[in-house]
Amino acid sequence: MNYSKQDLLALNDFYSSQLLNDTVPFWFPRSYDHEYGGFLLMRDADGSLLDDDKAVWIQGRATWLLSTLYNTVEQKPEWLEGAKLGYEFLNSHCFDSDGRMFFHVTREGKPLRKRRYYFSETFYVIAAAAYAKASGDAEAAANARRVFGDCLAYASGEKRLEPKFTDTRPAKGIGVPMIMLNTAQQLRDTIGDERCDEWITKWIEEIETFFVKDDIRCVMEQVGPDGSIINHIDGRTLNPGHAIEGAWFILHEAKYRNNDPHLVDLGCRMLDYMWERGWDKEFGGILYFRDVYNKPVQEYWQDMKFWWPHNETIIATLLAYLTTGNEKYAQWHRMVHDWAYRHFHDPHRGEWFGYLHQDGRLAQTAKGNLFKGPFHLPRQEWYCAKILSEHFSVNQGSGSTHAAHV
Amino acid sequence: MNYSKQDLLALNDFYSSQLLNDTVPFWFPRSYDHEYGGFLLMRDADGSLLDDDKAVWIQGRATWLLSTLYNTVEQKPEWLEGAKLGYEFLNSHCFDSDGRMFFHVTREGKPLRKRRYYFSETFYVIAAAAYAKASGDAEAAANARRVFGDCLAYASGEKRLEPKFTDTRPAKGIGVPMIMLNTAQQLRDTIGDERCDEWITKWIEEIETFFVKDDIRCVMEQVGPDGSIINHIDGRTLNPGHAIEGAWFILHEAKYRNNDPHLVDLGCRMLDYMWERGWDKEFGGILYFRDVYNKPVQEYWQDMKFWWPHNETIIATLLAYLTTGNEKYAQWHRMVHDWAYRHFHDPHRGEWFGYLHQDGRLAQTAKGNLFKGPFHLPRQEWYCAKILSEHFSVNQGSGSTHAAHV
Repeated sequence: MNYSKQDLLALNDFYSSQLLNDTVPFWFPRSYDHEYGGFLLMRDADGSLLDDDKAVWIQGRATWLLSTLYNTVEQKPEWLEGAKLGYEFLNSHCFDSDGRMFFHVTREGKPLRKRRYYFSETFYVIAAAAYAKASGDAEAAANARRVFGDCLAYASGEKRLEPKFTDTRPAKGIGVPMIMLNTAQQLRDTIGDERCDEWITKWIEEIETFFVKDDIRCVMEQVGPDGSIINHIDGRTLNPGHAIEGAWFILHEAKYRNNDPHLVDLGCRMLDYMWERGWDKEFGGILYFRDVYNKPVQEYWQDMKFWWPHNETIIATLLAYLTTGNEKYAQWHRMVHDWAYRHFHDPHRGEWFGYLHQDGRLAQTAKGNLFKGPFHLPRQEWYCAKILSEHFSVNQGSGSTHAAHV
Repeated sequence: MNYSKQDLLALNDFYSSQLLNDTVPFWFPRSYDHEYGGFLLMRDADGSLLDDDKAVWIQGRATWLLSTLYNTVEQKPEWLEGAKLGYEFLNSHCFDSDGRMFFHVTREGKPLRKRRYYFSETFYVIAAAAYAKASGDAEAAANARRVFGDCLAYASGEKRLEPKFTDTRPAKGIGVPMIMLNTAQQLRDTIGDERCDEWITKWIEEIETFFVKDDIRCVMEQVGPDGSIINHIDGRTLNPGHAIEGAWFILHEAKYRNNDPHLVDLGCRMLDYMWERGWDKEFGGILYFRDVYNKPVQEYWQDMKFWWPHNETIIATLLAYLTTGNEKYAQWHRMVHDWAYRHFHDPHRGEWFGYLHQDGRLAQTAKGNLFKGPFHLPRQEWYCAKILSEHFSVNQGSGSTHAAHV
């Protein structure tokens, strides 16, 4: 069944209201750490603190969220104040002397762990860029651009990071072009950077050329240097929610380029392939890992339902629907939206649980930990409200008030 | 209900028969890689090969198993031939030029990944020692002793390995004294080494002094340098099956020392504490992770049932029963044995599945992968049959035939 205009207006209100009345208030302002800076985000279902350590990814993501709310929803001083706490903590405590960032620090900002990946850096870029726009701080903009340059050097191999594997079996992951694509899109949307468009085009080509397999209707998570499937356990492992996140980054780019038909087609193909492989026909929801040839995967928790693949799939199906009007996407959006809000959402205390068993039973109660924080859910609610508002303002010429209230 | 002599005889026959007619034939001889050496062990439920890569831990463990069967069950040429394949592959392909070992290599033996831990090395020590005893190869004995010396240097900090964490929050894990304790016990039981007794005593003291918490009835997985509980998510995480494995290593030492009462008490306390925390009163089986204060843990799959904690708990409860005669341990043994063989065992195709959901439903079908292979299950069946046989030969003076058939 297609979505009516009423349905879409109701969805816009729903996402907007969930974001501002349920999700954001779970986290803020109580998580502001006025004593040491940054945020205290590792919280149990009732909001009680599980751990006062700080995960650098999540500090960056929370800074991005508060800045983005300030930039696009309302110029609340409380949000700018929080963004400043996060941005300054990142600057003061999360960089090592070699310019790389840590992964995990204490409440006071002492380093606990540094990893071989540069995701801390990419989240810093989107945080600093959004904060620069919110605050007008020129140094924050310069920092965002500088660290983006570092990320470009890591991504291109110009600066080499310590490898986890030997050179025996070279492989490349979809994670790098995906995170860099989104980082560049965020940078472009906030403070702009002349490098972005060219790189965005390159990373999309990289994804399409090497990772999207039309013959077997699949988006690979990793491949050999020539795009070949690596027929070993790790090489065969698919992450449907992750590939679907990549699909909406590309649909977002299609929208930015006036519905570029090639990109619309590419994003929809990626969504189609990975919906087919990821949607759990038995219990509903998106399965975490699948094997490309349906063999057992290494990770034992492969059939669990995690919160974030559902956030990505809600965005991707809604954006595909608004872009194409294809009823199939309305149906898929309704399925994943209904399953996710029924099983993950905690209506009593706000926000979502993170980890369910395959059948939707709660596996554990944490709402914030080293990997979960105020990011995927609020980003989904914010982004869905935004594209619905834009849809009305473009298509019906009547939606500008919606754009204003999210 | 206590175990009768008939019950124990039946258990002896059961473990012995499972080992020789069900578990070992699943793996061997079909996994011998006559072309490249070593073993092809990553297998699905029906024995079909999932991946021809070789996990170094498992190559060592399989070599240990085949050598041990040859040393203690029957001098089958087929087992010695397999042990030789494994031992020679380890020597030819699994050492890096710095003397450290790899974690994961290709079928041909090209290195894929090296890790910061020295578990590959400890499994090499028990493999080479058992193979030396089986083959009479003096060089294998010298290699076992040399690599054991390297492990001692890593364990004591004399040789420093690249750390995963900074020095901000020093911690030590129970894994090091546990694996070293068992490695030394194996070395002593096969080829002997004068360093073993002293170190075994030290590692048991280390476990008792720093990790066993009588006041809260708990065995910690990691602690601060002074034994304090690190009140952060990782520091609070318990691994009941692992601590129970440590309990039987200590009960094994108690048995070796003529039922040393202090060690019997220590091993039983560890088992008691972690049975209370690990046994799932709702569904049965041993839960994978718990938080010391019952908070949510970081790992989302914390309530899954893995095969190996059940193998360790079957051993620990049986050994505790045979050592103390305490009916409680007979009851626990019956509970964990029945639950495990009912849920993990594949009666049609042999061996056990590795990964179940909390309720005992199968999560995935692999019987061999990077972490599972012919080790915990056959070790459990072999060791349980062995201690039952010894029990009869000591207590009833009638069990020597049992000792012979396993």
